[in-house]
Amino acid sequence: MADNHYKLWLNYYPIENTIIKNSIVKHFNNIQVLNNDATIDIIKKELNIASAGFINRDVKFNTPNSETGLLIGTLDKLPNNIAQRLDGEFKSHEGFAIFQHNNTIVITALSTVGLLYGTYNLLENIGANYPLTGVKNFSEPLIQHRILNHWDNLNGTVERGYSGASIFNWHTLPDYIDQRYIDYARANASIGINGTVLTNVNSNATILTGTYLQKVKALANVFRPFGIKVYLSARFSAPIELGKLKTADPLNADVQQWWANKINEIYDSIPDFGGFVVKANSEGQPGPQDYNRTHADGANMLAKILLPKKGIVMWRAFVYSHEQNEDRHKQAYNEFTKLDGQFLPNVMVQVKNGAIDFMPREPFHPLFGAMPKTPLMLELQITQEYLGQATTLAYLAPMYKEVLDSDTYAEGKGSTIGKLLHNQKLNGIAGVANIGADINWTGHLFGQSNWFAFGKQSWNYNASPKEIADTWLKLTFKASDNFYQDISKIMLNSREAVVKYSNPLGLHHLMGTGHHYGPEPWANYLPREDWNPTYYHKADSFDIGFNRTKTGSNALSQYKPEVQQQWQNEDSIDLKYLLWFHHVNWNKKLNTGRTLWNELCYQYQSGCDDVKNMITTWQKYKNELDMPTFNHVNMLLNIQYKEAVWWRNSSTLYFQTFSKLPFPQFLEKSDKTLEYYQSLKFPYAPGHH
Amino acid sequence: MADNHYKLWLNYYPIENTIIKNSIVKHFNNIQVLNNDATIDIIKKELNIASAGFINRDVKFNTPNSETGLLIGTLDKLPNNIAQRLDGEFKSHEGFAIFQHNNTIVITALSTVGLLYGTYNLLENIGANYPLTGVKNFSEPLIQHRILNHWDNLNGTVERGYSGASIFNWHTLPDYIDQRYIDYARANASIGINGTVLTNVNSNATILTGTYLQKVKALANVFRPFGIKVYLSARFSAPIELGKLKTADPLNADVQQWWANKINEIYDSIPDFGGFVVKANSEGQPGPQDYNRTHADGANMLAKILLPKKGIVMWRAFVYSHEQNEDRHKQAYNEFTKLDGQFLPNVMVQVKNGAIDFMPREPFHPLFGAMPKTPLMLELQITQEYLGQATTLAYLAPMYKEVLDSDTYAEGKGSTIGKLLHNQKLNGIAGVANIGADINWTGHLFGQSNWFAFGKQSWNYNASPKEIADTWLKLTFKASDNFYQDISKIMLNSREAVVKYSNPLGLHHLMGTGHHYGPEPWANYLPREDWNPTYYHKADSFDIGFNRTKTGSNALSQYKPEVQQQWQNEDSIDLKYLLWFHHVNWNKKLNTGRTLWNELCYQYQSGCDDVKNMITTWQKYKNELDMPTFNHVNMLLNIQYKEAVWWRNSSTLYFQTFSKLPFPQFLEKSDKTLEYYQSLKFPYAPGHH
Repeated sequence: MADNHYKLWLNYYPIENTIIKNSIVKHFNNIQVLNNDATIDIIKKELNIASAGFINRDVKFNTPNSETGLLIGTLDKLPNNIAQRLDGEFKSHEGFAIFQHNNTIVITALSTVGLLYGTYNLLENIGANYPLTGVKNFSEPLIQHRILNHWDNLNGTVERGYSGASIFNWHTLPDYIDQRYIDYARANASIGINGTVLTNVNSNATILTGTYLQKVKALANVFRPFGIKVYLSARFSAPIELGKLKTADPLNADVQQWWANKINEIYDSIPDFGGFVVKANSEGQPGPQDYNRTHADGANMLAKILLPKKGIVMWRAFVYSHEQNEDRHKQAYNEFTKLDGQFLPNVMVQVKNGAIDFMPREPFHPLFGAMPKTPLMLELQITQEYLGQATTLAYLAPMYKEVLDSDTYAEGKGSTIGKLLHNQKLNGIAGVANIGADINWTGHLFGQSNWFAFGKQSWNYNASPKEIADTWLKLTFKASDNFYQDISKIMLNSREAVVKYSNPLGLHHLMGTGHHYGPEPWANYLPREDWNPTYYHKADSFDIGFNRTKTGSNALSQYKPEVQQQWQNEDSIDLKYLLWFHHVNWNKKLNTGRTLWNELCYQYQSGCDDVKNMITTWQKYKNELDMPTFNHVNMLLNIQYKEAVWWRNSSTLYFQTFSKLPFPQFLEKSDKTLEYYQSLKFPYAPGHH
Repeated sequence: MADNHYKLWLNYYPIENTIIKNSIVKHFNNIQVLNNDATIDIIKKELNIASAGFINRDVKFNTPNSETGLLIGTLDKLPNNIAQRLDGEFKSHEGFAIFQHNNTIVITALSTVGLLYGTYNLLENIGANYPLTGVKNFSEPLIQHRILNHWDNLNGTVERGYSGASIFNWHTLPDYIDQRYIDYARANASIGINGTVLTNVNSNATILTGTYLQKVKALANVFRPFGIKVYLSARFSAPIELGKLKTADPLNADVQQWWANKINEIYDSIPDFGGFVVKANSEGQPGPQDYNRTHADGANMLAKILLPKKGIVMWRAFVYSHEQNEDRHKQAYNEFTKLDGQFLPNVMVQVKNGAIDFMPREPFHPLFGAMPKTPLMLELQITQEYLGQATTLAYLAPMYKEVLDSDTYAEGKGSTIGKLLHNQKLNGIAGVANIGADINWTGHLFGQSNWFAFGKQSWNYNASPKEIADTWLKLTFKASDNFYQDISKIMLNSREAVVKYSNPLGLHHLMGTGHHYGPEPWANYLPREDWNPTYYHKADSFDIGFNRTKTGSNALSQYKPEVQQQWQNEDSIDLKYLLWFHHVNWNKKLNTGRTLWNELCYQYQSGCDDVKNMITTWQKYKNELDMPTFNHVNMLLNIQYKEAVWWRNSSTLYFQTFSKLPFPQFLEKSDKTLEYYQSLKFPYAPGHH
């Protein structure tokens, strides 16, 4: 049976280059490991798995009378003459160094988890066919908390999950340890992810009962030696639901005592428990505002108890009020900036990359740089809720890089989000996982690249999306250099293609209602105005777009003046943000030489053309790949093309009802009517909570 | 990475015996195939996969100047001198023969699907290490319709499914053909399954919409060359829900026209569509009785339209009325026997093996043999709804055999259910699938053996559970003969163990409410009396058991006199059915030498001891198996033991509140109180619809 890609990027394909192969044989023939703990056991196991794959041999440890090929040990255990050769000073217990000493490759670190990271790094280099000789690497994470957020429910479903059921089988835990849990931990550790929130932010208090905490403990025990901490989402009303209290008021002594007891109970089972993520007073979730307390009151109540235990609180900023009719873009900023300085030091305010909701492209969230006294945590989405779900090839590293490189000007030019995070005493990046029980974990094989990239970029926000793609491709496919080059190009262009055919020129929130599948820019029937696509595009017979300048909602005022200056003028703003901030006349001539209407049509068409090109490129490699792998991607690309055309046709037909302008010639004619597209219903689209 | 058992019994492990290996090399070195169609393509592919596994070589077809090693062709294509050697005459297009002619192994049949079955049979024999020389087999199915029933919902959940989400991804169909669909078809064809009902009997009319029928068509196209037909569950009220009619009355002309149009639409897409299964007027499902029509009226309305298209209707007999306070055991018989002779010839009444509901043991359903003019279809459950779900090793072939061998005495002694079915002009066996998207398909690895056995036993109801287990073990594990022998014993005893520790002496329906997980014999709070365990065990301070004799509900009267005689006397009835038919005094002395109370305790204890022994046996083979496989079963057996003890402790503690008798010494003392057991809640137990 052909490759089903369960192994992710840990394939350890046989090395064909004889020189590299011989060099591996030499180095793996005598490995000395100077430490001894559960993490070291994992290092040894991983070396065995890798060696079996790369060179079809067992590794040998501590071979007598033989030169050491690979020396693995924490810095304090290294012989002095070797330790002295370390080129750099560790600032993090997670950092590692790899260097050559005579004929020996040395991996060192301050902790065994650092050694594990170093080992994975070495194996990755081998897998990507880089020569071992002269290997040299000194790497430390720029971000402390690199955390997956699973929106997994206790009944096994996954909110916004498109790759099968939850991998966490709460029913059979704690007694059944699925091999998946181990392989999940291996995959995460191999890319530097060091934390996982096991449960949905739309939380269920049951996870905090004794029975379930024993299940969490079992997972924590599996993950611990991989350097991965577990976290849970905390339902703010748990003291009522589980504790039978009358209130969950964070200033109530009984409530505080209930949480203190609960947190003690957790730490009794899981001494290195990571802490809580909390979605409070947001989309119907309970929170401190139910008791006229602030988000700071709520977060600090938990943080105070967690502080001596080294636990943290990740308090989500994704709030928008039921009462206010304010531009949703502005609400988190309004709610949170006034609380700056009020949070305990082990609280991070967790902020999505943009102010709306994980759109294919958003300008960066105005909270970044706006709360200098509060550590912010960046929340990215790996699952493709708004980027075609699991039938779309959209490589997200360029999007993450765009966010991390965004200059807030908070401390002058160059105050990128990445740097701001790094400079915080406490920092972290969360990624909403795209992982499910599908054999290949992510539904779309290329979804694996987004999990991979998230790990790499949260370790090092300067990492190059191209280099990440190149490495991932080599680890994932046994193919030719031409394949790697061509498919790397596809990947790097893929997110932009999705933007073009679904959310061009700064348009946003045009997707199907509820399930968020496909286009529904005409939807205007939802009870909250700001849940409707029509609220966001504001098309009329003259103009289209959301005026967020001074003459509109003035969300733009939440940014620093330098940023405002970039975006405030519809003539000079980067076209990618044009309709995000401006309500623009259909006939306005843009610097592309086209009118707005024609440019919009051009973007839709161009996105479709891009997908067509992706298909052509993929099909060039039919004979290089095993059939199931080729077919998998080929079928999905064809679905993506269908969906791109659906976006293009339905959106241009719909917007034409406002613009009343003729379609430019380059736009392919729709073979369906707008009414047809409007009639489509998807009652069982996946991932809808 | 170690074996994850995705390949099921189609592992094609390398052959180590040199003689057998050389013989395979010889036979696979020149294969002649005399036919040519899509099924033949599959035969060739399968031979290639098998050859790669068995002998790590490609097979060769039509090698010039070389003796034919394997000749595959339908009877009409065989050279006369070879055709004449066929020892038997095919009565079924699905039958096959394998025999040796000089140095050539010949596989022949009337159809290419028969050739496919023959090929799988040959490969199975190789996989089980039987010598090829002198191979001889003539095999025909004794049952025409060997059908899996998937209780899979369109949203991807599976009712009573314990092995992950549905394998059918309705969202990505028809454009995405998951490799799973192909491997599912391979697995089914390899064991003779020739039909599959894709959707839950608790049906959703959406499956009959045009959009979904295109998805069904895509699956039918995949399954067709494997000899597998697709069937759907039909929601009786679909004419109202989809057709906007005011009624679904089967005698209404508009309703009939709606179904005629719908069925035409289906056959336009799927010319060999198999037909419908219908659950009507049962547990809230709509049906003909809503319009004062009979089940025959409903079934015939569909059957009449399906008849010219060669489609069938499988009309379920699992009905029990909301209004009647009659013993549920009797209701299907009462409802259906009066309709005998009224059904069109392409209707089968689908009857569960027992009258209650797939209990670990039930006496056979009294409808068998009671409707001589109506073809009945036997419905078995493969998914272990009441047999420990996916954490229990319960090999079900002995249970199926017990049912198939049950003598109804309908046409005198020897009128077993198997024979009665076989003698019908139209016949079939349905198995409620235990298949899900878990990597190993069935959650518990040994669940695969039940899928395998279902195929084998529905092909040949005389097949020996031991031989099936032995073959399955050899195809599934690469291990020693001792392992096969010991684990075969475990398998053969496993279902009886479950009966002993959960439903001893004919007790039944004692499981947890709703989710059916674990014991809850005390439950008495459900709105319908016959949904409560207390209704079934009827324990009081004197007696326990359900009196179904003349002095009780007299369900016994629904059986033939010879059967009644076996079961009517509490002194002579087989103890396994004692409390099914009798309300018996706690102090009654049984022929085991123990009182009823002590015997009950003995059974509970003995079942637990059996599981403990299974663990001991399994652990003997730790070093023979790869670790994930060993651990998988080992962890599950330990869970099973916990659950067995939970059944034993809670049940004996609970029944003691009635018997007031002391526990016998051999009964291990419970470390928990009855109150503790009664407090347990499982809100997220899987498979609950």
